[in-house]
Amino acid sequence: MTAIPTTAPSLVTLSDIQAAADRIRNLVVRTPLLPCAWAEAGRPLWLKPESLQATGAFKLRGASNALALLDAGQRARGVVAQSSGNHAQAVAYAAARLGIRATIVMPDTTPAVKLEATRAFGAEVMIVRPAERDIRPLELVEQYGYAHIPPYDDPWIIAGQGTVGLEIAADLAAGTGDPVPDTDGAPDLVLVPVSGGGLISGVATAIKALSPATRVIAVEPELAADAAESFRAGRRVTWTADRTYRTIADGLRTTSLGVLPFAHIREHVDAVVTVSEEEIVAAVRTLGRRSRLVAEPSGAVTTAAYLFHASELPAASRTVAVVSGGNVDPAAYLGYFGGV
Amino acid sequence: MTAIPTTAPSLVTLSDIQAAADRIRNLVVRTPLLPCAWAEAGRPLWLKPESLQATGAFKLRGASNALALLDAGQRARGVVAQSSGNHAQAVAYAAARLGIRATIVMPDTTPAVKLEATRAFGAEVMIVRPAERDIRPLELVEQYGYAHIPPYDDPWIIAGQGTVGLEIAADLAAGTGDPVPDTDGAPDLVLVPVSGGGLISGVATAIKALSPATRVIAVEPELAADAAESFRAGRRVTWTADRTYRTIADGLRTTSLGVLPFAHIREHVDAVVTVSEEEIVAAVRTLGRRSRLVAEPSGAVTTAAYLFHASELPAASRTVAVVSGGNVDPAAYLGYFGGV
Repeated sequence: MTAIPTTAPSLVTLSDIQAAADRIRNLVVRTPLLPCAWAEAGRPLWLKPESLQATGAFKLRGASNALALLDAGQRARGVVAQSSGNHAQAVAYAAARLGIRATIVMPDTTPAVKLEATRAFGAEVMIVRPAERDIRPLELVEQYGYAHIPPYDDPWIIAGQGTVGLEIAADLAAGTGDPVPDTDGAPDLVLVPVSGGGLISGVATAIKALSPATRVIAVEPELAADAAESFRAGRRVTWTADRTYRTIADGLRTTSLGVLPFAHIREHVDAVVTVSEEEIVAAVRTLGRRSRLVAEPSGAVTTAAYLFHASELPAASRTVAVVSGGNVDPAAYLGYFGGV
Repeated sequence: MTAIPTTAPSLVTLSDIQAAADRIRNLVVRTPLLPCAWAEAGRPLWLKPESLQATGAFKLRGASNALALLDAGQRARGVVAQSSGNHAQAVAYAAARLGIRATIVMPDTTPAVKLEATRAFGAEVMIVRPAERDIRPLELVEQYGYAHIPPYDDPWIIAGQGTVGLEIAADLAAGTGDPVPDTDGAPDLVLVPVSGGGLISGVATAIKALSPATRVIAVEPELAADAAESFRAGRRVTWTADRTYRTIADGLRTTSLGVLPFAHIREHVDAVVTVSEEEIVAAVRTLGRRSRLVAEPSGAVTTAAYLFHASELPAASRTVAVVSGGNVDPAAYLGYFGGV
């Protein structure tokens, strides 16, 4: 009988993220930093638009890394993932690109448009009752030998998402061209949405390794603020789905941080800031009207923090807001963009 | 008395464009090629999203090149430009970045929102009657020694816009990662909007120098098809403003190609394709809903050609559509995106 390990989990390293970047170079878009002409005086802002990935979200990076790591035998057997959102499309698309068969388990509450988008990438979609969605993938692993591709609580997923941070650090170091305001040598600031925590874990690891003075702050909706509460409490706090599902930011409704992400966040993240639903809508509108990006509510929380929570953010020479995705229902988007 | 020159104008060269790229590196966004997951089977498509420039259009490249070339004395005196559109904001923004005083002459028919956007970049806006808009800049040059920054009929402007083509050629050569369909070794295809002709002149020059087999095709609205008519006739044909102003593509209403652009187009462009107003609206909608880009009608004509005029386009291994800009009236955009 082996002892239950009590040591902290191993954290993903910069070299893990650099290896991921090499692995996924031909599978994802190397997104630029976009200067915002509408930024407030003395607070220059750049956007990192992951909405421009082929599947509309950063999730493609982690999924591509996890799939590219599989050996030939595993590729031949196929993969399975569980998601009703951006992870589903990411795994489906990356699998198609790599010639791997993918099965995506989706709850029967998933909107038809998302089922179709996932099928359109060539994946087999298996619709289950919500109560079965976590167990069914494991049954498929058992039965068919599929590899299970988790959404965030996994070192390879975190390393893949961390390539966002590598690119931000490289672009900030190369100089953004814009004159930096006199802010007494304040460090740079990177704002990242948080839900399960895979994205911010990878981004913070890369940024802190390459530019230790840069601040990394997580942003989430007030209505799904389990990460803020966990950060304050020093332990993973779980909210009920009834609570987190109140936010329009449907990519940020995860009820708790992952175990491995929480370890990264405690090590590398400086603070967690929360934003209101009204602020999220205003940020979606600003991104569409002023930066010409169709962002989903989850992708706009960082812009909301920049616009409406300056007093909670540290003084910064340059601020980067990660716009994590742009998969939004068209009818809902009309309301956000139009300001109805 | 000197003889009137009868030789053709000197064309911009690849090295002019490469020098422009070095000059404007810190002033513009190095935009990526975006793969379209919604492309038709066997016809892979990438977008070159110039809507992501800080001023929302490619015009920033040419303006930045022209301004960066000015000597210290000229920079101290200032610059003047005439435009009611994207060139106005480009000159205003680039001038502010370089610490140069800019005066923008705009007709009194310009929407207030465009006047304000130009002023917001720090330029002085001079409002004139439409009949005076071409003469007033020349008076200011005479009176104050301003440098005049033309919108397209100028080698430095063409060289700056040509950096779009440099980047496309480099990205296609590096490989886009996607498997290329079996199209019997067909060359690549680049679709570029045409109005005054500055953008396509520069893009075609760069592409043909770096990848001679790649086809470059100009796209314009049927309702402003002076370039198509000029291309067929072998001479610059001018349409009346009454005719060109019928199109919703307000960036493509120029009534004739520039002299210097026409010389480049005859030398380097393979064909001109025209698209209908309905096709332009559908393309704006597709770019917003499927590629998460807010595009203006002028920026969407190339996507319209891809979607609706495949039979007029040569067989291609890979197609690139330049999305030239995203400055669109929000109320109009709601109609395009919503499909009303």
